[in-house]
Amino acid sequence: MRLSGGVEWALHCCVVLTSVVEPVPAARLAELHDVSPTYLAKQLQALARAGLVHSVQGKSGGYVLTRSPSSITLLDVVDAIDGPAPSFICTEIRRRGPLATPAEACTEPCPIARAMSTAESARRDALRAVTIADLAVQVDISSGEGTLDGVGTWLRTGNA
Amino acid sequence: MRLSGGVEWALHCCVVLTSVVEPVPAARLAELHDVSPTYLAKQLQALARAGLVHSVQGKSGGYVLTRSPSSITLLDVVDAIDGPAPSFICTEIRRRGPLATPAEACTEPCPIARAMSTAESARRDALRAVTIADLAVQVDISSGEGTLDGVGTWLRTGNA
Ligand code: FES
Ligand code: FES
Repeated sequence: MRLSGGVEWALHCCVVLTSVVEPVPAARLAELHDVSPTYLAKQLQALARAGLVHSVQGKSGGYVLTRSPSSITLLDVVDAIDGPAPSFICTEIRRRGPLATPAEACTEPCPIARAMSTAESARRDALRAVTIADLAVQVDISSGEGTLDGVGTWLRTGNA
Repeated sequence: MRLSGGVEWALHCCVVLTSVVEPVPAARLAELHDVSPTYLAKQLQALARAGLVHSVQGKSGGYVLTRSPSSITLLDVVDAIDGPAPSFICTEIRRRGPLATPAEACTEPCPIARAMSTAESARRDALRAVTIADLAVQVDISSGEGTLDGVGTWLRTGNA
């Protein structure tokens, strides 16, 4: 089971977008991350469709976060890029074959499906507990205070 | 992100195998579940490779659990079928581009990768907390006491 590779790019984009107030062109974000602009544009469009970034058209257009980084969670970004479908789908195996569980005993989900969905919820809860603002703080701690300010300056001016 | 569809079949097979002591031919398990024998054999072989079931050759051959259902976890089965690779792979995006984080600041994993891996661990912990024995108890509660005994009789004799 593998998350889309776009999740890593999208999370990094959201974190660097915390350092600016003006829209940043997709091409500039691609240059910062040294990645194909077409590929990054795809991730940014998915973030836009999920309402996490807003695309501003025109000469000084680009992408901005639509709301405070403290109200965008990791789960929002992961679902935007990878889709919100559950990782385990119960196909009602229990209703098959010569000893099929009768329909009247199937009003609740199968215990196996229930256990799988508990595990999935644990993952989603953990992703929901962390915001882009939390990550921005951690990046500054890990890479040195002022790191994201520096990124913001570069995104605006092209100078580090 | 989607788990292999084989996970549901493999979990159901492990649960029904708690009801027998003698090996059950793959074809019989396939008949019980009304599924293609070739497809089910693939899942059983993966369980065997992971050391969860043992394949007994010969006339009264088939599959048995290799150990007590209380020491086989959901995680064991999921990893056996879906593979144990993490769902998020960090490709070290932070080391790319004009503002790359210098190598000496990258001795710890990126905070983003850390948060993703915390969420993955929450899922794995939840899967590790449930055993095949737990599921067997729940199946009997949900489908009625004696359900798995009935399945055991059918697997041995072909009669419900
Ligand atoms: S019937 Fe789907 S998990 Fe049991
Ligand atoms: S560099 Fe991989 S998640 Fe940040």
